[in-house]
Amino acid sequence: MAEFNLKEVASNNAFGGKLVKYKFKSIALGGLDTQFNIYLPPQAQQGKVPLLVYLAGLTCTEDNGAQKGGFLGPAAERGIAILFPDTSPRGAGIEGEDDNWDFGTGAGFYLDATNPKYSKHYNMYTHVTTELPQVIEAASIPIDAKKQSIFGHSMGGHGALTLYLSSKNAQYRSVSAFAPICNPSKCPWGEKAFAGYLQGGVSEGKERYDATELVTRTTGPINVLVDYGTSDSFYKQGQLLPENFVDAARKAGHDESRLIVRGQEGYDHSYYFISTFASDHIQFHAQFLKE
Amino acid sequence: MAEFNLKEVASNNAFGGKLVKYKFKSIALGGLDTQFNIYLPPQAQQGKVPLLVYLAGLTCTEDNGAQKGGFLGPAAERGIAILFPDTSPRGAGIEGEDDNWDFGTGAGFYLDATNPKYSKHYNMYTHVTTELPQVIEAASIPIDAKKQSIFGHSMGGHGALTLYLSSKNAQYRSVSAFAPICNPSKCPWGEKAFAGYLQGGVSEGKERYDATELVTRTTGPINVLVDYGTSDSFYKQGQLLPENFVDAARKAGHDESRLIVRGQEGYDHSYYFISTFASDHIQFHAQFLKE
Repeated sequence: MAEFNLKEVASNNAFGGKLVKYKFKSIALGGLDTQFNIYLPPQAQQGKVPLLVYLAGLTCTEDNGAQKGGFLGPAAERGIAILFPDTSPRGAGIEGEDDNWDFGTGAGFYLDATNPKYSKHYNMYTHVTTELPQVIEAASIPIDAKKQSIFGHSMGGHGALTLYLSSKNAQYRSVSAFAPICNPSKCPWGEKAFAGYLQGGVSEGKERYDATELVTRTTGPINVLVDYGTSDSFYKQGQLLPENFVDAARKAGHDESRLIVRGQEGYDHSYYFISTFASDHIQFHAQFLKE
Repeated sequence: MAEFNLKEVASNNAFGGKLVKYKFKSIALGGLDTQFNIYLPPQAQQGKVPLLVYLAGLTCTEDNGAQKGGFLGPAAERGIAILFPDTSPRGAGIEGEDDNWDFGTGAGFYLDATNPKYSKHYNMYTHVTTELPQVIEAASIPIDAKKQSIFGHSMGGHGALTLYLSSKNAQYRSVSAFAPICNPSKCPWGEKAFAGYLQGGVSEGKERYDATELVTRTTGPINVLVDYGTSDSFYKQGQLLPENFVDAARKAGHDESRLIVRGQEGYDHSYYFISTFASDHIQFHAQFLKE
């Protein structure tokens, strides 16, 4: 582990398996230390297990999903590992980076920045899709890299959808999301992020990192589950726009039986909402990961 | 609600039911505002449901158990409400109250203070056993007050055991605990709390608030489940002393089939440990609450 200088920070038994927190020097994030949690179910003691990547939302860290998501129990039952990356680089020292809760620290938007101000450090796309799998392999963590799926919440739901769709289904077998930002080039959070991180601004973001755009260009079957709450204030404010995503997918001719989008009556944006449907999401991915 | 001035602070749908946070002016806590969460399972829409009281540990608030415990899903399945009180008064303004993480704010130890310095505010025993049930009844929250059980973690496990045993099984039908402080008059945390809050110091605490002492004076059947982790650093430091509790209960002739104490191999003191066995504890209480 000389290259990444990987260190175990913490380890907690949970549901017969182990949640381990690691720290390493991230090349994708410009040489900054970053942390991630990985949950290894009891089945990992016998051999390699499939991997589900969980991307958290604005202001979160690698801990929120592990602590509050309610994922570990169902993952232990189905023999699936879960990777919890952080949501941005930390401590890049860029002027203004800590001034907003929805941009900069805690708000990396799972893209690779092209604006020179951010492009050395804000490369969460490469960090999640390429670097973390390399770190896991180099550390001999018992993951079957050929069996990966991805899910996330809010900004992390955007991340999950865009990473899944932009890899053209090659890296991840299925995607699911809780209250995802589905059409970021048409909502305030996404517009702010794209305008800040990308040299080409919102039009570059629309082209590369907008699930509603990407789904129109994706061929082949897609496996998608989305849950959002009808009482989610961010949904009501037009930050999430799941209808746009569904319309685009339908127009593009995707098989609707493989596109499950559910409005959950009375639920909000919180981890109480997430934990309620956590088991459904794990079961959804299990059908693809266990094939 | 004129008397308590009860106000709803937040409400989140969860597992088909609702987690509601309330604030009120607590008489037991000397007129300070206090908060609690109560989870109402879906069955509460049809009528009164049994109540399980969860007491959290040192440094916690009314939120930790609700967010990280993993209790809500199993409670929804079994139709049981869960009450999450805070762990101490807040803002009493007593000199030194915020200087220690294991005494004062966040560390009320579920006793009624007799040291005049603390006796106006630090009355968590009365707050939990008497005042909160009154508030719930006055607010017409659909709880069947005749069906209550209690559980908790660490300091809250001490609270659960002592409230259960000192009420002589009359208020609570069963008790369970995660990593409880079982013999506080013989461990540093308990000695510090008793010496500070009680005029009679450790000997008063031993008499009134020590589960290992109380169990020797409790007659009639007891229903107890305790889990602790064998890798829990506080267990290894002698803060928990579950063996003392078991020995005392056996010597007092309690039916061992109703006294389940389990050392869980490799588990620690965290909410990952708690959430792993959360469902077991809910099922344990359900057998008494559903009678």
